[in-house]
Amino acid sequence: MQAEPPMNGDAALAALQRRVRDSFARQAAMTTLGVTLGAVAPGRVSVRLVHRAALTQQHGYLHAGMLATALDSACGYAAFSLMPADAAVLTIEFKINLLAPAKGPLFRFDGMVVKPGRTISVVEGRALQFDTEGGEEKLVATMSATVMTVTGRDIRH
Amino acid sequence: MQAEPPMNGDAALAALQRRVRDSFARQAAMTTLGVTLGAVAPGRVSVRLVHRAALTQQHGYLHAGMLATALDSACGYAAFSLMPADAAVLTIEFKINLLAPAKGPLFRFDGMVVKPGRTISVVEGRALQFDTEGGEEKLVATMSATVMTVTGRDIRH
Amino acid sequence: MQAEPPMNGDAALAALQRRVRDSFARQAAMTTLGVTLGAVAPGRVSVRLVHRAALTQQHGYLHAGMLATALDSACGYAAFSLMPADAAVLTIEFKINLLAPAKGPLFRFDGMVVKPGRTISVVEGRALQFDTEGGEEKLVATMSATVMTVTGRDIRH
Amino acid sequence: MQAEPPMNGDAALAALQRRVRDSFARQAAMTTLGVTLGAVAPGRVSVRLVHRAALTQQHGYLHAGMLATALDSACGYAAFSLMPADAAVLTIEFKINLLAPAKGPLFRFDGMVVKPGRTISVVEGRALQFDTEGGEEKLVATMSATVMTVTGRDIRH
Repeated sequence: MQAEPPMNGDAALAALQRRVRDSFARQAAMTTLGVTLGAVAPGRVSVRLVHRAALTQQHGYLHAGMLATALDSACGYAAFSLMPADAAVLTIEFKINLLAPAKGPLFRFDGMVVKPGRTISVVEGRALQFDTEGGEEKLVATMSATVMTVTGRDIRH
Repeated sequence: MQAEPPMNGDAALAALQRRVRDSFARQAAMTTLGVTLGAVAPGRVSVRLVHRAALTQQHGYLHAGMLATALDSACGYAAFSLMPADAAVLTIEFKINLLAPAKGPLFRFDGMVVKPGRTISVVEGRALQFDTEGGEEKLVATMSATVMTVTGRDIRH
Repeated sequence: MQAEPPMNGDAALAALQRRVRDSFARQAAMTTLGVTLGAVAPGRVSVRLVHRAALTQQHGYLHAGMLATALDSACGYAAFSLMPADAAVLTIEFKINLLAPAKGPLFRFDGMVVKPGRTISVVEGRALQFDTEGGEEKLVATMSATVMTVTGRDIRH
Repeated sequence: MQAEPPMNGDAALAALQRRVRDSFARQAAMTTLGVTLGAVAPGRVSVRLVHRAALTQQHGYLHAGMLATALDSACGYAAFSLMPADAAVLTIEFKINLLAPAKGPLFRFDGMVVKPGRTISVVEGRALQFDTEGGEEKLVATMSATVMTVTGRDIRH
């Protein structure tokens, strides 16, 4: 690869955000579920979701798998935001703890890198629900995820 | 509650299967994703899914969250199958390890109870992919889940 | 049980700290490893350990199991500190991520309750190392734990 | 490195076992706790421990951290047994579920590789207790671990 001229802070942030948005837009599952990308900063990414019946479990709450999907996306992109421009991100594992019934109706999922690494990064996620936009937040789930930086065409583990 | 007359083995199995199918049918998220219920036996439940573009991540593989959703469902119902008839099941936490790119096109998710408990049950899940129906299986993810038996109307943790 | 007269804040904190210290003192494994109890507040407990050769893995770092043991203790007692006086605490599961070689020589392990519950509490732990007392901290491991409140003589899950 | 002449099956197994035993012998924590190495086969390693008061939690059972330590060792060496001769093994993360009070008095911890990988391997562990040597086994804990193959002097993540 040819070296790019160095970018200043604003340009670097804009490039990073564009990289995250482009990759997120290719996650068809996000469109299917209605998960949208929120704030993107180095090492921190948020995604959003609005409760709807199509995503529920048998008691009418958001299915644990939907929480996991949105949190995995937030965590993966949080790590991706710190990776080299030509790298891809691969989730190796995650654990989720479900703390309260996920009623929403508004959800925000925050991914925050705890330990960036050349090969392995560790990221934590928080799923928050809100009655109204800007209302009081309630923590409904936590995630701890391990993601891998993959370069070139190599996405084998 | 009034005591029911005891059932013989076949009737008990049929009742357990009906109970799992009725609850599964109320998980709207399963319909949305196209996850269907497979074999149901005491302590073992399988669900199925066919790969489709709407459920993918940015490289065209099944999104890790979809694997987690289907595995959580298989694990939860495996535990539910051993619970009293008036109990509900609540996932407390799960961890998933992603072992290989999830190409499918056919997936089966098996939940197997490792330790049933009055309050807490521990369940393991396996996500398998197949090229063709009855073809060779390939392990793509493992899950370890903790679920809780909830009785009455009480679904607080 | 006969109701105790209510305690004021200072007396309640002192009682809580005594309860944690008494139980911690009965964990023979802590004495064997040299783990000592640090600060105790409602929902937050710290323990400490000094690196020594007897606790190492094959490269001379603190064994991951020693980190897990100290973090589990910090997390369990953080939850225990919020439980009724006649309750016992039981770890159901924990996950640990190892972020950096654990050289120490000084370690502090913080347990912080994320979600207290009547039956199930979720706790997070941080393992920090320091070159010197009061020196810069470095995060070496994170834990996410689920613990159960057990009352009476019933310590079956 | 100079290529070694290929070994036949028996010689390869003996070399693998020697490599595991040599590394295990350098884990001082194992000696301190009394954990001993048992059977070693490609992708499967067992370690053993006898219950003793010095390793207990507040109710007299083996401390969860001791179970975690022994399981981590079994899992790590199970993965190590499949790695190149010049590689080192690094635990990235593990999760343990505690299923029953760990009374022993005899324990065996089995690590089994579920997915070997060039960089990342996934391993499962089982902690079993026995009343007597050769007696009925009881499952007391399960582990799911992610370990990394590290080559050269590079043990940064």
